[in-house]
Amino acid sequence: MHKMEEKIRREGKVLPGGILKVGNFLNQQIDTAFLEEMGDEIAELYEGCGVTKILTIESSGIAIAAAAGISMNVPMVFAKKHKTSNVDGEIYSTTVHSFTHNTDYHVVVSHDYLLPEDRVLLVDDFLANGHALRGLVDLVHQAGAEVVGAAVAIEKKFQGGGDAIREEGIRVEPLACIASMSDDSITFCQL
Amino acid sequence: MHKMEEKIRREGKVLPGGILKVGNFLNQQIDTAFLEEMGDEIAELYEGCGVTKILTIESSGIAIAAAAGISMNVPMVFAKKHKTSNVDGEIYSTTVHSFTHNTDYHVVVSHDYLLPEDRVLLVDDFLANGHALRGLVDLVHQAGAEVVGAAVAIEKKFQGGGDAIREEGIRVEPLACIASMSDDSITFCQL
Repeated sequence: MHKMEEKIRREGKVLPGGILKVGNFLNQQIDTAFLEEMGDEIAELYEGCGVTKILTIESSGIAIAAAAGISMNVPMVFAKKHKTSNVDGEIYSTTVHSFTHNTDYHVVVSHDYLLPEDRVLLVDDFLANGHALRGLVDLVHQAGAEVVGAAVAIEKKFQGGGDAIREEGIRVEPLACIASMSDDSITFCQL
Repeated sequence: MHKMEEKIRREGKVLPGGILKVGNFLNQQIDTAFLEEMGDEIAELYEGCGVTKILTIESSGIAIAAAAGISMNVPMVFAKKHKTSNVDGEIYSTTVHSFTHNTDYHVVVSHDYLLPEDRVLLVDDFLANGHALRGLVDLVHQAGAEVVGAAVAIEKKFQGGGDAIREEGIRVEPLACIASMSDDSITFCQL
């Protein structure tokens, strides 16, 4: 998605520790017109694949997943980062390591919202080491449902998570894919 | 919004402790066609009010705020529940008590995303005791910006938070407003 690359070049900021800050349009502040376009792009990538549900993880994937859900006209589900008092009943649960916060956390989704007959598209804002996406794959498999593929706004290819997941036969589509980045330059992969 | 009342009657579930579970269409699982309608309804309620930005709080307000932002064509910002390594620079911060989790947490937003000239619409899924909304009002006032009003998917009027905020002169619009609820019945206020 050429426009995503443009946005990253113009509005993104590389922070120490290999963090790409896109809070100006993708997380924290969201450019809603661009959000709609992202949703449409994801819908186009997975058109005809029989997706019945979109699954993401709170918080920063929610807006993109919602936009994709609107565009594809399927329900969106977000996995929660801990068991709260308003997720009652039976849950699927997995553990995910957060690169940003350097901590492990539990990710849960109610049995009610992932069904064995679901064909699930995973959506998130970033794909780096792939831990969050692997957690979502695990939740879908626990439900006996099928992973159709994943769509992420930005893949940091140099961290290897995306390719490791592709090697397991899962389709992964980034809207922009970063080959390398330093304080003063970002190099994109060909999509 | 008549359809919201219908959805609550048909799909909502009252849990012990006065918790209304709407995870089937509003949080955790989101009915995305209905989400679009909620966004349009919020846009209609605040049409002509000069809203420049929508502010919500992670996580369950994000999807509705994004839908409202898409419909109103203004950016959406979500306040984060703690300072993370990818919110750099200066932040506005406030403390909010969570009724659901019975705990206090910090809520922050970067100075970059709330400007003194902003006219801000606050959006959230639930309004009960009003603590989350008050936290958002505080963040907007710290930025020297103006609160145009608030739109919430569901107000639990019997908990009093909405009326206390209205008494301070802030417009609060629920899409559905619950006067009272028990295990086997929900009574709505006239809107």
